[in-house]
Amino acid sequence: MEATARAHTNIALIKYWGKRNESLILPTNNSLSLTLDGFFTTTTVNFHEDYSKDTFLLDGQEETGEAYNRVIGFLDLIRRQAGKNIHAKVESMNDVPTAAGFASSASGFAALAAAGSKAIGMELDDQELSRLTRQGSGSACRSIYGGFAEWQMGEREDGLDSHAVPIAPQSYWDVRVAAVVLTATKKKVLSREGMKRTVETSAFYDGWLKGIPADLKGIKQAIQEKDFEMLGAIAESNCQKMHATTLGAYPPFTYWQDSTMRVMQTVQELREQGIPAYFTIDAGPNVKVLFLPEDEEKVKETLEAVPGVTDVILSKPGSGITYL
Amino acid sequence: MEATARAHTNIALIKYWGKRNESLILPTNNSLSLTLDGFFTTTTVNFHEDYSKDTFLLDGQEETGEAYNRVIGFLDLIRRQAGKNIHAKVESMNDVPTAAGFASSASGFAALAAAGSKAIGMELDDQELSRLTRQGSGSACRSIYGGFAEWQMGEREDGLDSHAVPIAPQSYWDVRVAAVVLTATKKKVLSREGMKRTVETSAFYDGWLKGIPADLKGIKQAIQEKDFEMLGAIAESNCQKMHATTLGAYPPFTYWQDSTMRVMQTVQELREQGIPAYFTIDAGPNVKVLFLPEDEEKVKETLEAVPGVTDVILSKPGSGITYL
Repeated sequence: MEATARAHTNIALIKYWGKRNESLILPTNNSLSLTLDGFFTTTTVNFHEDYSKDTFLLDGQEETGEAYNRVIGFLDLIRRQAGKNIHAKVESMNDVPTAAGFASSASGFAALAAAGSKAIGMELDDQELSRLTRQGSGSACRSIYGGFAEWQMGEREDGLDSHAVPIAPQSYWDVRVAAVVLTATKKKVLSREGMKRTVETSAFYDGWLKGIPADLKGIKQAIQEKDFEMLGAIAESNCQKMHATTLGAYPPFTYWQDSTMRVMQTVQELREQGIPAYFTIDAGPNVKVLFLPEDEEKVKETLEAVPGVTDVILSKPGSGITYL
Repeated sequence: MEATARAHTNIALIKYWGKRNESLILPTNNSLSLTLDGFFTTTTVNFHEDYSKDTFLLDGQEETGEAYNRVIGFLDLIRRQAGKNIHAKVESMNDVPTAAGFASSASGFAALAAAGSKAIGMELDDQELSRLTRQGSGSACRSIYGGFAEWQMGEREDGLDSHAVPIAPQSYWDVRVAAVVLTATKKKVLSREGMKRTVETSAFYDGWLKGIPADLKGIKQAIQEKDFEMLGAIAESNCQKMHATTLGAYPPFTYWQDSTMRVMQTVQELREQGIPAYFTIDAGPNVKVLFLPEDEEKVKETLEAVPGVTDVILSKPGSGITYL
């Protein structure tokens, strides 16, 4: 009863920003992402009747705190669904540079769901696997698929219709992403906490939700037509709207720091020089920049020159779940 | 037929952000400001039948371009209202440090309206003068009064009920303002242009308008009770909401630059150190910081130490229109 799976992280171009059900992790809007090959987690799950408890090794280190509790909670879900009460040993290796500002929870929970469900003998199709994964970490449900994927929020109270669907495979369109890593200069607002405060208090949350259908429709058309300018402009606008909602929260807050502003401005200056590059930012200060393969060198050196940038990590579209 | 008047600029704590009528300058929401003694314009208007045309001297220099046209357009309004067709010589001196990031249009049009209407023989009360001033520059209508003033948007199509009213006089409460001047690092989005794009395209404009009544009610209560923390928290939130609306415009834009973020963060750090200080920002990168007299030294030296800050100019509450 052992299986090993690999999952890649993903970057949202239309952001997941708010839950309608905290415990089932049901979102308030559809989101759309690109899975990235540069950042992944490889996880082996071994269920064995001899084990007297669950263990979780992350990068070779035994975990016992918050990370352990989240993994065990998710194993309980798998065990409940499989109807088997049996302990497991989980070993995960993260090939997500910790400093890159990508939450390893997306690749982590996708790999855990895939390896765990296979090891325990469940036979899930991608959609079922995505639905299971969602309950570990919302955005992880998109990492089941390579390339572009959409997380459909669904309407049901039980969440059965809330899962990702594939939009275009890894090989469809070679859009590149530069992860721009910044020196942290300010205290972190946790992603979950910020999301919750925004949903509950922001003057702009309604405006955010109202704009999603048009953004989604537009970005799908951009993918269909391989219109990079359109893709980038919509992603950049959607990201700025997401961050604007935090300024409308009470008390207001922002994930941005001064170097975040410099990188955003640099990306806009790249465009003024004729290089199509667009930024997107998740719930943290780091910036991800979308660009095309022919501009790789110029984009990388320009971003590396921005004060406060410690690293620029390049990535291509990645694959969905693979079993090793 | 000559008169000289002085008017001070004002800083909005609840922002004027959007017009419902561009030519009459009728706003979409009430705003509330503090008039400042540190920044003022002194204007002499002389009407004389011997003049064959209007002239406008600003700080001793004859103006002919855009500034001239705005002044002449306003003189036409005064002449129409007075029923007199006569040319004028206008001399203005700005004691608003140009680099301070205060629009001199607020003090400028208030002084021009006061001197011009008096010189031509109209006898206007403060409310009538505020209504006239509004048609030169919206936020200038608040500078008729010292201390705290509210611009009531009104409901009428002809704008007769759109003018400022006094909330608390200059002597009522010694709230201080530090104008933090920054090195400009990015191209300017004009205030008018940004306001228009935001009203027309922002996903958050409805959310902005919906929040105004509560902000206004709260800040008036704070003034009534001299509750500085409440005043500051509402002003800081209102400013961030105003700036969030520009991120929801299409295409999105911002008036902030990296040094703006640093100053905002510094103000929040001052509070963590127990010093009540709050920021507000108009349609530009510079920051204004509200503080209390006893914290003047600490606030000034802390702000001056922020990289990118070129000057910190302190001000107290100012008076309304005075005739010299």
